[in-house]
Amino acid sequence: MTNKRVSYSHLQNFIQTAMLALGLPPKDAQTVANYMADADLQGSDGHGVIRLPQYARRILAGGVNTNPNITIESERAATALVNGDNAMGHVVMKFATELAIAKARQSGMAWVGSRLSNHAGPASLYSRMALEHDMVGMYFAVGNANHLPAWGGLDMLLSTNPISVAVPTHLEPPIVLDMATTVAAYGKVKAKAQKGEMMPEGWMIDFEGNPLLDPKRSEEGFLLPIGGYKGYGLSLIVGILAGTLNSAAMGKSVIDFNHDDSSVTNTGQAIAIIDPAAFGDPTAFKERVDQLIRELKASKKMKGVEQIWLPGEQSHLKREEHSRLGIPISAGLEEQLRLVAEKLEIHKIQLQ
Amino acid sequence: MTNKRVSYSHLQNFIQTAMLALGLPPKDAQTVANYMADADLQGSDGHGVIRLPQYARRILAGGVNTNPNITIESERAATALVNGDNAMGHVVMKFATELAIAKARQSGMAWVGSRLSNHAGPASLYSRMALEHDMVGMYFAVGNANHLPAWGGLDMLLSTNPISVAVPTHLEPPIVLDMATTVAAYGKVKAKAQKGEMMPEGWMIDFEGNPLLDPKRSEEGFLLPIGGYKGYGLSLIVGILAGTLNSAAMGKSVIDFNHDDSSVTNTGQAIAIIDPAAFGDPTAFKERVDQLIRELKASKKMKGVEQIWLPGEQSHLKREEHSRLGIPISAGLEEQLRLVAEKLEIHKIQLQ
Repeated sequence: MTNKRVSYSHLQNFIQTAMLALGLPPKDAQTVANYMADADLQGSDGHGVIRLPQYARRILAGGVNTNPNITIESERAATALVNGDNAMGHVVMKFATELAIAKARQSGMAWVGSRLSNHAGPASLYSRMALEHDMVGMYFAVGNANHLPAWGGLDMLLSTNPISVAVPTHLEPPIVLDMATTVAAYGKVKAKAQKGEMMPEGWMIDFEGNPLLDPKRSEEGFLLPIGGYKGYGLSLIVGILAGTLNSAAMGKSVIDFNHDDSSVTNTGQAIAIIDPAAFGDPTAFKERVDQLIRELKASKKMKGVEQIWLPGEQSHLKREEHSRLGIPISAGLEEQLRLVAEKLEIHKIQLQ
Repeated sequence: MTNKRVSYSHLQNFIQTAMLALGLPPKDAQTVANYMADADLQGSDGHGVIRLPQYARRILAGGVNTNPNITIESERAATALVNGDNAMGHVVMKFATELAIAKARQSGMAWVGSRLSNHAGPASLYSRMALEHDMVGMYFAVGNANHLPAWGGLDMLLSTNPISVAVPTHLEPPIVLDMATTVAAYGKVKAKAQKGEMMPEGWMIDFEGNPLLDPKRSEEGFLLPIGGYKGYGLSLIVGILAGTLNSAAMGKSVIDFNHDDSSVTNTGQAIAIIDPAAFGDPTAFKERVDQLIRELKASKKMKGVEQIWLPGEQSHLKREEHSRLGIPISAGLEEQLRLVAEKLEIHKIQLQ
């Protein structure tokens, strides 16, 4: 079955209307809607409008502060700790990333952490903000539910803690890595459940170590880290840098926002920005990245491989395709959005 | 067969004598010897004295500058680009890391890159330098030989490009992640060959995609990245941050130092330091890390698992064991070191 589609601007408008109805100030409603629609535009379908029902539930349950006072708690030339005052994560991270870019322009590099933030969508939304300034962006976050034990353990103490790095280019599409430190992000598990599909082997195992394939049974097991103990280590480090360093939730103190709509999550994130101009001519840097991309793409291929992909290249193509043809919305998601619209007494989403 | 052992101070002295004989100034000979012996002390046996024959060969072939003038090429409050003048990598990275720590103390965070550097041993040597200042250290490097293609490709354009992150603690041993972005580091392949052992499945495949198990046949295939395409992405990003950004070698321009003793490698590295004091009370941070460690270690375990390990914990125990009992040296390595000593006309290494 072909999915129906929605244009970016209509999707953005639908989300913005929902956020206004939920009590966000106009500017914040716009910010959240922009980022959520951007997520769908680039094909991050586990992190876009699919999250609206959950966000709405949390806001209505009082789990998110719709009128926040976001502040800088401590600051040096190249660092800041942002107190998100329990705002929507998108609003906090926009603030934090703009601050980091301004500091990097002065100091060459900046690292801004957040606490009392919330789920902010796909990691690459924020790393990519560096690109229009010809800077490198790096984003780290503590996931909002623990689905991963220590290597060899059974207690769920770690999350999918993602890493995103965006690198500017001259003529080629930018390089944008955006990855969970688990084989699959939990958003992808949710998307599989939404679509009624099974997961491939290797995404999750049950508590006895057997493969777990049904995404609806995801509570009966856990995600696997990439590279075994190495992915466990990466997830832990990302969690310390984005969470523990910022006095945000990490380990036992992480709130499972799939089962709790009202507790303050105290989500921690970190955005790091490097200004390549501090290391030499920025255009020459971007040209070197272009050359590297061309070397990789011109590589001889293994049998059966049609094309070498760069990180972010498929999202780049999705962004172009979705801009042209609209963003696909599954029937299941359309129904969920209809229920949200009904509850908030706003117009329905219009699909093509 | 039990290996013979050598004390740390004797090993350090042996290497220092060799480096002096190779023409390094006394201070640099001491630096290189300290770091190389530290590598063996913590069990990084692919990166310690095992590299001495190769380093000696490169220095004698004119591939390394023994009387370098290491300079800062460009600098801002939180960044610097260090020109290593083709010195031994250990000397360059000591300089870069000390600079980064001083800058982080002022600016809260610092990122220092190197170019015209060389192989510097295990990544954790430099991230760990942050610990005595109660800071977080992060190290990234471009490996000195390409053993990894793009995902789906066959041309060797990427290296094992390691990541190390060291996190200070209050009472627990520090957390020190030190990992290649491949399933196995190439140093581990070399160590297997040295010991005459086979590699486990999953470390390497041949050009047709079949498992490659004999480390002596390592030229007939390539290393596998962790998590498939994700590890490819991580290796690429580390290479861009440590190499391309610093105008150092990356991609096709990487010199394979296993087959070329005389070309300038133009190795790139990056050290990033965060001062937790810029984000709140540093002791409270270290106590939060301790608590996280205890949560992870107290976790319920999978059947058959005796203990949950933290990243760096096994190296920590190795460091204690080797300090007490000495550092194991295999018969094969002893013979190689005997040949180096003969060539340089210095005393032999004395084993217990």
